Amino acid sequence: MTADYRTVIRLKHASNLDKIPADWRLKYIPSPEEQQEVEPYIEPLLSSKELWITNVSALELLKNIKSGQLSALEVCEAFCHRSALVHQLTDCLIEIFYDRALQRARELDAYFQETGKLVGPLHGIPISLKDQFNLKGITTSLGYVAPHISEELECIVSQKTPDEESLLARILYDAGAIFYVKTTVPMAMFGSETSSNLGVTRNPFDRRKCPGGSSGGEAALLAGKGSVIGMGTDIGGSIRGPSTQCGLFGLRPCSNRFPYLGTSNSYPNQPIVPSVAGPMCRYLEDMEYVSKVVLDAQPWFQDAKVPPIPWRSVNLDIINVGFMHWDKIVMPHPPILRALEHAEKSLQEHGIDCLDVEPPLNHAEMATFLTDIYTCDDFAEIKKFAALGGEPLPELLVKMFQLNGQVFDLNDVFNKVGQKYQYQQTYDKFWNDTAHHTKNGKPVDCIILPGWACTSWKIGEHYKIANIYTRFLNVLDYSVITLPVSHVRDSDEPFERTDFAGEADRLCWEYYDKEFYRGMPIVLQLVCRRYEEEKCIALAKKLLPIIRD
Amino acid sequence: MTADYRTVIRLKHASNLDKIPADWRLKYIPSPEEQQEVEPYIEPLLSSKELWITNVSALELLKNIKSGQLSALEVCEAFCHRSALVHQLTDCLIEIFYDRALQRARELDAYFQETGKLVGPLHGIPISLKDQFNLKGITTSLGYVAPHISEELECIVSQKTPDEESLLARILYDAGAIFYVKTTVPMAMFGSETSSNLGVTRNPFDRRKCPGGSSGGEAALLAGKGSVIGMGTDIGGSIRGPSTQCGLFGLRPCSNRFPYLGTSNSYPNQPIVPSVAGPMCRYLEDMEYVSKVVLDAQPWFQDAKVPPIPWRSVNLDIINVGFMHWDKIVMPHPPILRALEHAEKSLQEHGIDCLDVEPPLNHAEMATFLTDIYTCDDFAEIKKFAALGGEPLPELLVKMFQLNGQVFDLNDVFNKVGQKYQYQQTYDKFWNDTAHHTKNGKPVDCIILPGWACTSWKIGEHYKIANIYTRFLNVLDYSVITLPVSHVRDSDEPFERTDFAGEADRLCWEYYDKEFYRGMPIVLQLVCRRYEEEKCIALAKKLLPIIRD
Repeated sequence: MTADYRTVIRLKHASNLDKIPADWRLKYIPSPEEQQEVEPYIEPLLSSKELWITNVSALELLKNIKSGQLSALEVCEAFCHRSALVHQLTDCLIEIFYDRALQRARELDAYFQETGKLVGPLHGIPISLKDQFNLKGITTSLGYVAPHISEELECIVSQKTPDEESLLARILYDAGAIFYVKTTVPMAMFGSETSSNLGVTRNPFDRRKCPGGSSGGEAALLAGKGSVIGMGTDIGGSIRGPSTQCGLFGLRPCSNRFPYLGTSNSYPNQPIVPSVAGPMCRYLEDMEYVSKVVLDAQPWFQDAKVPPIPWRSVNLDIINVGFMHWDKIVMPHPPILRALEHAEKSLQEHGIDCLDVEPPLNHAEMATFLTDIYTCDDFAEIKKFAALGGEPLPELLVKMFQLNGQVFDLNDVFNKVGQKYQYQQTYDKFWNDTAHHTKNGKPVDCIILPGWACTSWKIGEHYKIANIYTRFLNVLDYSVITLPVSHVRDSDEPFERTDFAGEADRLCWEYYDKEFYRGMPIVLQLVCRRYEEEKCIALAKKLLPIIRD
Repeated sequence: MTADYRTVIRLKHASNLDKIPADWRLKYIPSPEEQQEVEPYIEPLLSSKELWITNVSALELLKNIKSGQLSALEVCEAFCHRSALVHQLTDCLIEIFYDRALQRARELDAYFQETGKLVGPLHGIPISLKDQFNLKGITTSLGYVAPHISEELECIVSQKTPDEESLLARILYDAGAIFYVKTTVPMAMFGSETSSNLGVTRNPFDRRKCPGGSSGGEAALLAGKGSVIGMGTDIGGSIRGPSTQCGLFGLRPCSNRFPYLGTSNSYPNQPIVPSVAGPMCRYLEDMEYVSKVVLDAQPWFQDAKVPPIPWRSVNLDIINVGFMHWDKIVMPHPPILRALEHAEKSLQEHGIDCLDVEPPLNHAEMATFLTDIYTCDDFAEIKKFAALGGEPLPELLVKMFQLNGQVFDLNDVFNKVGQKYQYQQTYDKFWNDTAHHTKNGKPVDCIILPGWACTSWKIGEHYKIANIYTRFLNVLDYSVITLPVSHVRDSDEPFERTDFAGEADRLCWEYYDKEFYRGMPIVLQLVCRRYEEEKCIALAKKLLPIIRD
């Protein structure tokens, strides 16, 4: 160690600022209290063309690139510009490489001009990557300081070879995507906020609030429209939390449906509940499109963990929808309850059979099951990598996880593997048994439930809001998509409750403040069974127009 | 413990003999030396109809049952009778329940007579089960004595509930199958022979030889034609070894392609290289048929570990076939080399592009990798379950596995998970890269290699023949089928070698004895990639008529 970790961080911030062209730099960074929302502050700084480009879907951009109306360079510049602005207000980027992106855009344009053809189905589409995806020549730091000190330390912390590339990134690149930024994560991707010693990422809808975690940099960038499609990862809610707190479509696929090969991770060989990679988008049509591009590349021939399940078409003529309004552990805030009630009522009015369901298992126990796995080595790996950078464990990590000084032995591993299977079998049976309660005698096709118990919270106050609506789904390994359906309104009045399920329920309920939350996006989870990513998206497309409020 | 384990075993043998009707009992059991082959000894004891029934395929039986030419009862009786005879000469059965089977057959016949319909696609087909598959009311003992003492001990050793049923068995049953016997395994299913304190299973082609293991009871029964379709399991070759030593078609599916739910196992929660269940048959057409029946039941809705991959059709218009004549560690015996050469030459004469390939990894290292996993708890579980029955560890187990007194810790588990993935990635890349060496620029569709380095061996002499051709495929998790292609002939002369790859190579090579092996079946492995069971079978159907010698 030659430098204090704070010096390393200062240099990293300066280096990132250097990569933003001078006329994209904000002269003044208002405080979060002074300027809560990002969009109104940055829109005046963008041209009308840049505004249009950063507002439409990737499919719309593709159409315009294909027709020659837009160049890849224009698209790339617009997203570089806007991402720089969003970053300066939310601290959502950890790696910036606009030069490389613009060079790639020029090459794509040249190819198109020369051949009249697109290089692939994502020709010229900028895609942002969570800072776990590896690109040659770009640092991967996983929220640690050490990788910013040397490439040697980077390879230790990221557990990669110097030239490693994520297969997922390579598939997107080969399809024509342009990479331009990597986005922030909490240290080791462990956190429902995106804060580390390297910085604190903010929610672009309200900069006082957190964007969720661990794909919070990705979510902040997307919600600020500095990106149109991003790639995140999820081991306990890391795609769905941020998508919920930032009003996005986020897909948590079943394990290894999307390739994870060459993507850095904490505890990459933990075999019980794996982290999964998946897309985060502002447009549902983009999510379907990009998912199909990935699966059409037949990643199972490249990544031994990916099962050979192509992107399939889904028949949704007759469907049954389950609703889990709450988990009997932490009641969601009034706007979320309202959105769920509206959704169910609307579906019923459209003649869709809806079934109210209650958890067949204790989701709090399942959440603890998962955190036990996170902490299986008593954070030995995390402590080691933090020490390599001379940095302390961030407050977020320390506050979120109870360490008990115990390290799993072989029997602990075996027991957890067996326990997970039991949870899955119990839940699957419950799901099959819904067939006894539907009109057509078929089980529910999906279950709709809250994305989180609240729409967001003040940065640092995660501990007041139990993270319980996402984790059990990682244990079950179901396919899940988040659906932005509404916003918090003046009419979303709090109401009195005395029948709290427990302290976590009370704490969360009392946290609700209509004024504080006004305008925040409301996001639900739509859950299908394992390897049903296509069905998640197809159902979302069918149901969203009906359930939006 | 109230009785000596030898008493328990004696009582179990007596009880099994009791379940064989008096006129099916052999008056005299010749020694293996006296009567090597089973078939000529038992055929005179069977009626011509019984002989016909036990000789044809399950599909042929089904056709006759459907047309009313045969009753389920006739079929069941024939297999009960023949299985009793085979058992008395090979000790291949651990559970016998003919009464129950005949009762079921009568019910199926009644249903057919009443409705004119079959209950399902396996109506009246007897299916034998390796003694890991659970049926209500039938003991599962996994080669241990303890389960034969009490149901309480059975539940401890089999790690099951008293009423547990294997999903695979239930699917077959619901399709109309009749269960009548469960077949022997070595203790804990650990062994390339099928010997335990409970008994020694013999090879029906030559009773001096072993039938392989651990699905050796299944293989002996099938090869003796006491069964037409059986279900085995494989974690290191336990389906393919016995199928090789007994001249059968054995399918080692990719992990969890066939459901394992409710099936007892050693170390059921070992998460690195899982055991898999799969069919063993005398007819390739039966294997295809029964596999489709299982997958058509959509087991993924019942077993959380099964990926939703239906039984798919396969296009084999243009194919490339890889040949791995030997692994550079243990050269297979001359008849096997001859069969491989014949196969390759015949395919080439039929215009099929063949490519000779060499292992990209050291298969001996991969075999050790696997045995390290088998012994990860220093056999604590096995020692405990053996102690429950008051029995010593069998010689087979002690001789096969080197225990080093070490128990895996968390890092060992992580390292093994990572190492397996690396092996898989290396082999997949090697497979992809075969495309650079084929005429049509596509990778090989399959690789054909020996099923074992020899066709069988004298019971107890497994340690002279390295088990190396099957284990690496469990690590890679490829789909594999065994193909009986020929028999050892007088012309399969030994030849001199001085260039041994090592001691294991020399030991095995010197074991070859033309006289000893004459007439033994020669079986090859046909390997496809993960989840390509359909392709295995389709290729086998296409290639077998060409490569048979």
